[in-house]
Amino acid sequence: MDETPKGPKKRITCFLVDRRHPGFTVRDGSRSVSHPGYKNCVLEFSDCRLPAGQVLGEVDGGFAVMNDWLYATRLTVAAFCVGRARRCFEMAVAYAAQRKQFGQPIAGFQGVSFQVADMATEIDASDLLTLMGAWRLDTGLPLNREIASAKVHASEMLARVKDTTLQIFGGKGLMDDFPIKRFWRDARVERIWDGTSEIQRHIISREIFRPLGA
Amino acid sequence: MDETPKGPKKRITCFLVDRRHPGFTVRDGSRSVSHPGYKNCVLEFSDCRLPAGQVLGEVDGGFAVMNDWLYATRLTVAAFCVGRARRCFEMAVAYAAQRKQFGQPIAGFQGVSFQVADMATEIDASDLLTLMGAWRLDTGLPLNREIASAKVHASEMLARVKDTTLQIFGGKGLMDDFPIKRFWRDARVERIWDGTSEIQRHIISREIFRPLGA
Amino acid sequence: MDETPKGPKKRITCFLVDRRHPGFTVRDGSRSVSHPGYKNCVLEFSDCRLPAGQVLGEVDGGFAVMNDWLYATRLTVAAFCVGRARRCFEMAVAYAAQRKQFGQPIAGFQGVSFQVADMATEIDASDLLTLMGAWRLDTGLPLNREIASAKVHASEMLARVKDTTLQIFGGKGLMDDFPIKRFWRDARVERIWDGTSEIQRHIISREIFRPLGA
Amino acid sequence: MDETPKGPKKRITCFLVDRRHPGFTVRDGSRSVSHPGYKNCVLEFSDCRLPAGQVLGEVDGGFAVMNDWLYATRLTVAAFCVGRARRCFEMAVAYAAQRKQFGQPIAGFQGVSFQVADMATEIDASDLLTLMGAWRLDTGLPLNREIASAKVHASEMLARVKDTTLQIFGGKGLMDDFPIKRFWRDARVERIWDGTSEIQRHIISREIFRPLGA
Repeated sequence: MDETPKGPKKRITCFLVDRRHPGFTVRDGSRSVSHPGYKNCVLEFSDCRLPAGQVLGEVDGGFAVMNDWLYATRLTVAAFCVGRARRCFEMAVAYAAQRKQFGQPIAGFQGVSFQVADMATEIDASDLLTLMGAWRLDTGLPLNREIASAKVHASEMLARVKDTTLQIFGGKGLMDDFPIKRFWRDARVERIWDGTSEIQRHIISREIFRPLGA
Repeated sequence: MDETPKGPKKRITCFLVDRRHPGFTVRDGSRSVSHPGYKNCVLEFSDCRLPAGQVLGEVDGGFAVMNDWLYATRLTVAAFCVGRARRCFEMAVAYAAQRKQFGQPIAGFQGVSFQVADMATEIDASDLLTLMGAWRLDTGLPLNREIASAKVHASEMLARVKDTTLQIFGGKGLMDDFPIKRFWRDARVERIWDGTSEIQRHIISREIFRPLGA
Repeated sequence: MDETPKGPKKRITCFLVDRRHPGFTVRDGSRSVSHPGYKNCVLEFSDCRLPAGQVLGEVDGGFAVMNDWLYATRLTVAAFCVGRARRCFEMAVAYAAQRKQFGQPIAGFQGVSFQVADMATEIDASDLLTLMGAWRLDTGLPLNREIASAKVHASEMLARVKDTTLQIFGGKGLMDDFPIKRFWRDARVERIWDGTSEIQRHIISREIFRPLGA
Repeated sequence: MDETPKGPKKRITCFLVDRRHPGFTVRDGSRSVSHPGYKNCVLEFSDCRLPAGQVLGEVDGGFAVMNDWLYATRLTVAAFCVGRARRCFEMAVAYAAQRKQFGQPIAGFQGVSFQVADMATEIDASDLLTLMGAWRLDTGLPLNREIASAKVHASEMLARVKDTTLQIFGGKGLMDDFPIKRFWRDARVERIWDGTSEIQRHIISREIFRPLGA
């Protein structure tokens, strides 16, 4: 425990632990509404002792190790969201072009087509923010703010794209007959894991205001 | 089939049909992501013949019968949404007051508390629109636009309240341990059934522009 | 200056001061983009001494006096916003019903008509929240949260209604030929004076969380 | 006038006309709330006759000439919006870092800092969409949809950035003392000229649905 101007701060160290190591148990965790095929696990440690060779990074340097990896995983989440949104968008467009109401394809109603237009623009925006983050990671430029921007933009964009697509499908979008409802459920976790949208906004604003002493 | 200035229009008649009447079959329909406890059914009619006494309303007057009932059911949907939103809001408030991050209740962060404030305002707004619609129904005033407004407002409000509450609960909101994720899934259908939000906006705007000949 | 758990708090006393009283000067202040016909004034006090009879309320009780009056003025702002929104809405509807593009009134495009529908719903919502606040004021019920809700909802609604109306008028909306641009400019102050939207959200959330000790 | 499946369509030809040419008059037009320093002009033609050498492009080919140029001007509008947003953003950040309320810089309140975070993300997104459009123009790739996306995104983003910045400045943002209110007024035209946001959404959706015959 270190004393800092912001109060006491715990020291963290990362370890590599083998599945069957004494004192370490993996048990089933809660089930999630998103990605029900994933298994959430609870890692339990009870008097678990490890040799020095299994330390990842430095002793007490676990936060730095995690941070390094979190950049990459946040980018992965963003890229994932863009890909899923493009797949969903294609289905929305194909359905709107073929489904008729009042005698014409619903693509002919601005209530539908303007939402499709906004989806196209926003997916491109997330895609470019993600590529910019990846390029900064590759070239070793500062990227804390930019990757947080890509993550929050892409995950919030995905939520809107899934919701809009489900609405375009109407009642059918809710049913097992189409994959839309699964896409919609699965998208919900993206705004939460690897740092919620609120955490990303916190990171972005701290990067902006810290150099100004505020 | 009648010829109208807007093209051919089918005539509709409503009937009361007994469950075991010859030519009438009820079979299981698709399962929905909202209210999975409800059973969606498909009503199949095959050479089903009924006596005159089972006509509801007038012959060819089925649309009027449905319209009359739809007002009341739209109000019911709106009232339902307000009640569910209030229940969910209470859980969000209780959780935000007790859950701590960075050493203080998350209710102390405007990123949370401002969303709670907007939920409170919007729930009241939906509640009042619903009460106004009910009062117009009771007193026999014109209500087509007002009830569509209550329905679209309350169902869109509920979607935001459920989504915000889930976000306040974070990862826990997704899990089986709390009812939040079920509330969130169930809310999705409200913007679709009894006329989608798009249909309500269509009704509202037609009521406004029809008297102007536009 | 009183010491409180939240730090030192200044005592405030309200006075009635005559325009020509020695030590009191009124001079012209900055000009605002909203309501340019209003004159913003700076009140300067320099060794201004007043008899006890000109104290409003109690000595050191100025905050209570202000608070009492602020409820009523916030309601006035909300009512003002609703009235202005209704006037503006009528102009938007009349214009959309008559202005043609691609050979038909723009009221026939959902890109316009759905925005008109949402304006109608939101104006009603603000109207009802304002009436509820006024009724609570009349009957002596608690109203701090409810009046803050009416103020923030009505002023944010007005901003959207003015902005949408200007967009419906297109380039003409920006020009001196129509009053739309003036309505639009004037509406901007409503989200700021008598407590910004952020202050209202702060009031609302404090009313909700204070009883829970958060 | 040509007969087309969508009805009669006027033929357009572009000309270069000298300022003092007989039959051509330039007179002052209406004044706009945005860019009041610009002069809007009305071009009047009355029996104005021109030699063949002053035709721009082909006779009856004026629409193609205009379209070619509109791509570039839409990109210019988008680039303009990004630059203005960045300038405004810097002022918002500097002010939020220095302005104190309740004893701390308002940058410390998430009600402010989260809005700053979203501005940073959205400005980057518009910037990248604009660069992508410019790159497609340079390389001769299809760009109708992409440039419409850049234009609508950047102009809508600018409106939000200006509005948020004004709100961060509060009452001062409305006053002549700061340039914020001028930025805010000027931004309003960007969503209207060179094709309104609605026209851009129409272009985008037509590019998406036309290949599908819808």
